[in-house]
Amino acid sequence: MVLVRARNPNNIGAVARAMHDFGFRHLRIVNDYAVPFATARSAVDASEVLAGAKEFDSVAEAVADCTLVVGTTAVGERALLHPLHALPEAAAEIGEDLARDGRVALLFGSEKTGLSNDELSHCHWLLTIPMQQHEDVRHPSMNLGQAVAVCLYELVRQAGVHVATGVPATAEAGEVERLTALLTEVLEETGYTRRHPANCDEAQIRRLVLRMGVAASDTPVWMGILRQVLWKLRGAQTSGE
Amino acid sequence: MVLVRARNPNNIGAVARAMHDFGFRHLRIVNDYAVPFATARSAVDASEVLAGAKEFDSVAEAVADCTLVVGTTAVGERALLHPLHALPEAAAEIGEDLARDGRVALLFGSEKTGLSNDELSHCHWLLTIPMQQHEDVRHPSMNLGQAVAVCLYELVRQAGVHVATGVPATAEAGEVERLTALLTEVLEETGYTRRHPANCDEAQIRRLVLRMGVAASDTPVWMGILRQVLWKLRGAQTSGE
Repeated sequence: MVLVRARNPNNIGAVARAMHDFGFRHLRIVNDYAVPFATARSAVDASEVLAGAKEFDSVAEAVADCTLVVGTTAVGERALLHPLHALPEAAAEIGEDLARDGRVALLFGSEKTGLSNDELSHCHWLLTIPMQQHEDVRHPSMNLGQAVAVCLYELVRQAGVHVATGVPATAEAGEVERLTALLTEVLEETGYTRRHPANCDEAQIRRLVLRMGVAASDTPVWMGILRQVLWKLRGAQTSGE
Repeated sequence: MVLVRARNPNNIGAVARAMHDFGFRHLRIVNDYAVPFATARSAVDASEVLAGAKEFDSVAEAVADCTLVVGTTAVGERALLHPLHALPEAAAEIGEDLARDGRVALLFGSEKTGLSNDELSHCHWLLTIPMQQHEDVRHPSMNLGQAVAVCLYELVRQAGVHVATGVPATAEAGEVERLTALLTEVLEETGYTRRHPANCDEAQIRRLVLRMGVAASDTPVWMGILRQVLWKLRGAQTSGE
């Protein structure tokens, strides 16, 4: 990650934080004006990425050891002299380069003006984050920290990182059947079946229960609720008769 | 997009900007403390998204007209009581809901603490952005503006992909809330609440109902069933006394 002429220390901090979050380490800073980086580095919540960041005098020096240099740009800023890839395709190409032990530099320009033509000339090609086109051009480009986060997310996503998900197993058909039978008893006991016969043939009640998509772990809870309803209905009636 | 207890006006502004960048419009704010939103709104570069943002007193009200409520969380914060999807899978599910004219709420909690268990209980399921695991836990979660940008990027990226399925539209959150209230009455009336207090706090019952994934067209049927149960329970008791 190479930040060129970033002016806002908060943005530099946000970039470092996104790198930390997504597991990237090498931050390089090209800035003729030293204050933003110094300020960002002294922030109380500065990450170790920022502590390890290196300063360079020029883009050429910052990318000297890289096998692929990719510039970032907001489309429409100017006539482009480079091939342009949307982020999803760009991330695939970057992934291929990394897979053959390449060293890839991702260049981000200043918040106001992006990368200059001279800075862009160091790039093999450019990437852009597909965004909504608006009539007003007050926000021609994304916030720097957000743009970096989106790019790194896409790189990590394509690298195939997965977290375990917790989608619960659905109930087995036999359990659904028992739930359907209990619900049918409740409907009969309460008089619902007589009132709404059109809702109550067996297949309809089964479909209604199936559409619940009950999790296996919820089945005993629903069975318990329905049994309690039946118990109360019958108990109350018995004592009343 | 629903921001719950966001404390930093800059973050609220960054969220609105990311929404603008990716073409999302409806920002909702739930905040017992009015200053952050007022400050964000008065910023010179506030977007039209921020100008159109609406304030709500509670999560329930903010999501009342939504068919799918998705909470965001950093994994490992706590034991999760909801199914969890990594962002790429979550975006696919959200896309399917949108394709069948659903209205999806994406909930983000406060910068420090995320969403509380009560706030999470309004969610059908949770999404998490896959991140690097670090030994130090100084940055357990992403910056709010960056997290929102990454989520919206992924939604837009997948937007071309989704195909309408035959799955019926799910009930709006307001209807789920009414269903939860009716079920709670039934549980109290039958004595289930006294017998199984561990299953019966408000958030648990809400989650149980949300896990049903009630189709909009099934909601009146379930409401009718529960009302009939209540009518019978109360009628039988009255006549028995």
